[in-house]
Amino acid sequence: MSWDQVWIDINIATMDASITEAYGAITDAALAVKDGKIAWLGKRSELPSFDALATPVYRGKGGWITPGLIDAHTHLVFAGNRANEFELRLQGASYEEIARAGGGIVSTVKACREAEEAELFDLARRRLNALAREGVTTVEIKSGYGLDLDTELKLLRVARELGAHHHVDVVTTFLGAHAIPPEFKALGDGAADAYVDLVVNEMLPAVAAEQLADAADVFCENIAFDLRQTERVLTAAQALGMDIKLHAEQLSNLGGSELAARLGAKSVDHIEYLDEAGVKAIAQSGTCAVLLPGAFYFLRETKLPPIDLLRQYGVPMVLASDFNPGSSPLCSTLLMLNMGCTLFRLTPEEALKGVTCNAAMALGREHSVGIIREGMQADFCLWNITTPAELAYSYGVNPLVDVVKAGKVIHQ
Amino acid sequence: MSWDQVWIDINIATMDASITEAYGAITDAALAVKDGKIAWLGKRSELPSFDALATPVYRGKGGWITPGLIDAHTHLVFAGNRANEFELRLQGASYEEIARAGGGIVSTVKACREAEEAELFDLARRRLNALAREGVTTVEIKSGYGLDLDTELKLLRVARELGAHHHVDVVTTFLGAHAIPPEFKALGDGAADAYVDLVVNEMLPAVAAEQLADAADVFCENIAFDLRQTERVLTAAQALGMDIKLHAEQLSNLGGSELAARLGAKSVDHIEYLDEAGVKAIAQSGTCAVLLPGAFYFLRETKLPPIDLLRQYGVPMVLASDFNPGSSPLCSTLLMLNMGCTLFRLTPEEALKGVTCNAAMALGREHSVGIIREGMQADFCLWNITTPAELAYSYGVNPLVDVVKAGKVIHQ
Ligand SMILES: [Zn+2]
Ligand SMILES: [Zn+2]
Repeated sequence: MSWDQVWIDINIATMDASITEAYGAITDAALAVKDGKIAWLGKRSELPSFDALATPVYRGKGGWITPGLIDAHTHLVFAGNRANEFELRLQGASYEEIARAGGGIVSTVKACREAEEAELFDLARRRLNALAREGVTTVEIKSGYGLDLDTELKLLRVARELGAHHHVDVVTTFLGAHAIPPEFKALGDGAADAYVDLVVNEMLPAVAAEQLADAADVFCENIAFDLRQTERVLTAAQALGMDIKLHAEQLSNLGGSELAARLGAKSVDHIEYLDEAGVKAIAQSGTCAVLLPGAFYFLRETKLPPIDLLRQYGVPMVLASDFNPGSSPLCSTLLMLNMGCTLFRLTPEEALKGVTCNAAMALGREHSVGIIREGMQADFCLWNITTPAELAYSYGVNPLVDVVKAGKVIHQ
Repeated sequence: MSWDQVWIDINIATMDASITEAYGAITDAALAVKDGKIAWLGKRSELPSFDALATPVYRGKGGWITPGLIDAHTHLVFAGNRANEFELRLQGASYEEIARAGGGIVSTVKACREAEEAELFDLARRRLNALAREGVTTVEIKSGYGLDLDTELKLLRVARELGAHHHVDVVTTFLGAHAIPPEFKALGDGAADAYVDLVVNEMLPAVAAEQLADAADVFCENIAFDLRQTERVLTAAQALGMDIKLHAEQLSNLGGSELAARLGAKSVDHIEYLDEAGVKAIAQSGTCAVLLPGAFYFLRETKLPPIDLLRQYGVPMVLASDFNPGSSPLCSTLLMLNMGCTLFRLTPEEALKGVTCNAAMALGREHSVGIIREGMQADFCLWNITTPAELAYSYGVNPLVDVVKAGKVIHQ
């Protein structure tokens, strides 16, 4: 066989459901890469002969290979910093006092509107580097801190630029309907509808014209956009060829997930308040459930997402960082594995599926990444661990040894 | 002036209580180091003239300098790994099933007894490197996974060796009375007393003879050692010149903290169940309260330590990782700042005191480290942050730029 590289002395957590072992595991394995793709994998003893002099052979020292990690929900591109607000709140300040001190999402929106693209790029690049150092090879990034045409476009351009200049693939999501912009507040009850007009009539067409977003998202909640407004944005996005997804059922059960299911959304995200009817609906539509334990932890929520129902109805569960300055300032995908298990009682295997195969489904990339299988893109990590569960169990000593992205070896 | 190095373009969170600003802050500051100690600090505008050609000048780009971080409670030296047990529990296994599968502290004890010193050293060194990369310059390490003379000595020797070969200072604690060893269980009701005989009559003298421990500690709890047994160990340790401290009031209120206060302990640790009488007692004795949010998080405890009472009585609060394989497999001191604020509602300033000035007190090192002040050891960190609260607010993008340990600059 003629390969570009061969890995031996490894175990593989393929995450391939067609392999019945937990984690789709193949122990004492080997893996070959050709033209950026997985060309062969299996037991080391069955590795076909190949030209070992002409082919780089990497030895994994008995570690484990997993698919490259996928963080399917982040708000990675933003300026400003909410440490001041965090401190005020812990000093006992009221929400009003914090708002008067310039806190809340408005402060991030203001900072993003003022920031140059180069500044946003540099800040986001450092965050992406942190994720990459933990084995992330694909990340989703949402806009939503601009809330005006120019800034939403700017945030999405920065996300696209990041993807173009980093080994991590970036999938972008337009979240113009994240919050009602401060300058619309004067419109009172009509503010949300008026802003949705702008999102649908101006922002979405401009985003589509520049091909800046792979998907569109809405924050469907009492404090943001209702079901009718949400549907307007999502159907307009679909008409422009975008995938859709939804921030839903985080603080109450509005029925956003059933709407998302009816429209064929890729995912519903947060869903602490999702009920059985909603779980049934997303199960039938093949919509993924994106669980965000970082926000649950940081906001000290007590209402758990309906994990048992999601299991019962076979809904693919995804784990993501939701990294953002307001509700989840935790820029670590590996930490989410631990939080997913500790706080949401996922098993380590469910947690790892949530950042590999299921995360790929949430991003519509399940045919290229998230599973180690012949023909898939060669995106994988080598970890210095003795069992895949270690990735979820312990945190702090980074076990990442090597990353391979589209067949390119990136040493840590 | 003749100095070894000068830092400018910095702000300093001195953590010096004699400076009335929050964090003991000096903005637009400068700092000079001579012979491994802080030789001068103050406003940049007041920096005395010095030979700028002969003196290295470091520019902090407007970042913040804090004291080097101190993690005052860890169990960093151990072998084995409890990922399997973590996974079994999340799959629904009972404690009996886990014990039958070889789980629990017994598995760590077995692995530590079997491990060579070199293996233990290598594992611990990687963990210490992870802490050091987050700005830790002093760490406490406990024994307690040997539970026999040879292994307890081995664990303490490894901890001492770590300190000798790493820029991080290591303070060691003998925790022979961590649990009743499995081979004593056959003694039934007399097991704890019989093991305490061994701890007091053989282990402590041997530890003292080799000067392996700076302090001694006991796990005072219904499932471990009672007040009488605890007092036997602590007074024996004091007679040998060791400091004392106590794992107390983690699962119930046994009165361990009052005992510790009466004996003049440096700290009581965990203390979720500490009551007002106990808080009064440790306030009077000058005993520190060591809070361990990692274990609180990982064990999903709901009983919070009595933070308001600790504030009311002016007890110095310390934050530490408690890094260990059973109840806090989180090897990150910075993450504890976030967890201390998020879970225990400490202010960011209280959290930072907990890993600097107060942590130094818990280790009896308050005259050399934990504060940036003239004459103190030059242990400090430069962080790329705009406010000290950022260290507690956000996690994942490591803001550490440089570390200085005893005047030696260690670039990250
Ligand atoms: Zn989000
Ligand atoms: Zn402990």
